[in-house]
Amino acid sequence: MANDQPSFDLMWATLTGYQRTAALKAAIELDVFSAIAGGATTLAALAKRSGASERGLRALLNHLVMDGFLTRAGEHYGLSATAAAFLDRGAPTFMGSAVEFIASPYVREGFDRLTEAVRRGGSAIPEGSSLVPEHPMWVSFARAMGPFAGMSARLVANLLDVERAPAWKVLDVAAGHGLFGITLAQQNPAIEVTALDWKNVLAVAQENARLAGVAGRHHLLPGSAFDVPFGGPYDLVLLPNILHHFDPPACERLLAKAHAALAPGGRAVIVEFVPDDDRMAPPEAVRFALVMLAGTPAGDAYTFPEYRTMLQKTGFGRTTLHELAPSPMRAVIAER
Amino acid sequence: MANDQPSFDLMWATLTGYQRTAALKAAIELDVFSAIAGGATTLAALAKRSGASERGLRALLNHLVMDGFLTRAGEHYGLSATAAAFLDRGAPTFMGSAVEFIASPYVREGFDRLTEAVRRGGSAIPEGSSLVPEHPMWVSFARAMGPFAGMSARLVANLLDVERAPAWKVLDVAAGHGLFGITLAQQNPAIEVTALDWKNVLAVAQENARLAGVAGRHHLLPGSAFDVPFGGPYDLVLLPNILHHFDPPACERLLAKAHAALAPGGRAVIVEFVPDDDRMAPPEAVRFALVMLAGTPAGDAYTFPEYRTMLQKTGFGRTTLHELAPSPMRAVIAER
Repeated sequence: MANDQPSFDLMWATLTGYQRTAALKAAIELDVFSAIAGGATTLAALAKRSGASERGLRALLNHLVMDGFLTRAGEHYGLSATAAAFLDRGAPTFMGSAVEFIASPYVREGFDRLTEAVRRGGSAIPEGSSLVPEHPMWVSFARAMGPFAGMSARLVANLLDVERAPAWKVLDVAAGHGLFGITLAQQNPAIEVTALDWKNVLAVAQENARLAGVAGRHHLLPGSAFDVPFGGPYDLVLLPNILHHFDPPACERLLAKAHAALAPGGRAVIVEFVPDDDRMAPPEAVRFALVMLAGTPAGDAYTFPEYRTMLQKTGFGRTTLHELAPSPMRAVIAER
Repeated sequence: MANDQPSFDLMWATLTGYQRTAALKAAIELDVFSAIAGGATTLAALAKRSGASERGLRALLNHLVMDGFLTRAGEHYGLSATAAAFLDRGAPTFMGSAVEFIASPYVREGFDRLTEAVRRGGSAIPEGSSLVPEHPMWVSFARAMGPFAGMSARLVANLLDVERAPAWKVLDVAAGHGLFGITLAQQNPAIEVTALDWKNVLAVAQENARLAGVAGRHHLLPGSAFDVPFGGPYDLVLLPNILHHFDPPACERLLAKAHAALAPGGRAVIVEFVPDDDRMAPPEAVRFALVMLAGTPAGDAYTFPEYRTMLQKTGFGRTTLHELAPSPMRAVIAER
């Protein structure tokens, strides 16, 4: 980011940032990108396909050209490379469903009250947050974020060299969509996974396990990660995108349970936005701390030294940090 | 915008665009930029100055570093050139108040219902829109957008070579903050301005005229531009940021009234986001069409040929388009 010259454009783009989110959300909801991929490239054809007005589509599509998601040549609209890869439902890397969670009322509410959250140092959402049992937000999360998580899950599986692993028993804590565990089971037919989450959320994981053909090795453990006995012993305890919701003492309660549930030689695998020690990179990990401030009472994007301290306090041995490029996520692996 | 490679970052930045708006809004509301300009550069000093928590500020300020509004060296935060110019209340070009309008619930509501607006081809806000008499949105607009308009108003005054003008009588239609007329009166002590707007909005214009020292030559004409007789004759009829709210027949009703109220040799001056004929530039003018779709029943960002047609149909003669660089606005000047 060039900081040497005042940029009116930067300020304007930020002030109107919510309009760009809304434009992309509307286009995904109207499935405009898939329609263009399917050959409907004029306003008339798109209006017919999507059931929207030409007048409304013209304003929306031209906005999306400015935003880098569409191209236009004369009267014909096309997909930018970004839209072709991520926003056409026919693309194997389609991720448009993410808008249903990222721009959902649940997540947005915290940002609507951000000034107050900064004042008090924690979410200003009434009733605390989404951390109450069976909050519907997590069903939305599980359904919407599968495609995002799928990429991270494959990267984690590669990192763990899962194809050459023995018959691991795996606990997937706060499994959500379940994809971190499911992907391990998919890549190694000897692996058995137990997915822990609230019952309403596990229905999504169960469906994903069925679609992935691993339902027979995918077991359900409904309840709160804080309250339900983990069972075990496990070779791996996965903690994907869960610890950031809590303060360090609560994280340590979960980590202590994970440690106790691991077999000798077992490992805890934390998958998270982990900012550098000075919290100045990578950008999305730095920004994620604000998502946690807005939406949770005491969560955070913890640095690796912070995770290492929590892991050491709960009995873990060697702890290492791993990139998951090209994902902005990172993995922290701790040995029992 | 490079369209040749899929950009996960572009998609993510757009999905989370509303979070950037919220972060900037919170920082403006907590007046963090002015505090840093005033020497409070550490979390502890800023927490004390703004009454916010260090924990909350850390997440917010690091986000703003990523977004290009702050710099950070060790524990010290500084202003980027953009923040120094536009977000420090002590700066002569402070424009932070714009967030109160641009990110207000009034404007945001249209974008919350954007998918439906695209379907129907007009705002999906219940009760039509903000175009009802004395809607409080326009008081918010008048108060918040003065600093933005001030720049455009000075550029319009330059364009009209107002300092060398004779004793013009000027009608400022839908004056809002009143700055387009007030700036003319400021730059030429022979000019008399009549500001037309709803009564609640004119209170803001009246205050601005008093602050500018031109209250004695700034007259008020309360009511709807469609209903109130314009009076006259005038040498100039200003139509700043008003026509975009309406469909062409309604625009033509206003233009016909303007034409009838002009003295021989008089001119109508339209100040607007005017996109190029193909609606592919400038970016903010193209995007503005979506703002009108979201928020009005039938408004639009009209092109110059569209304005020229409306002006010809209502009796105007020579019509010219003028850039107002560095503002993204443009002026259309039509001779009676």
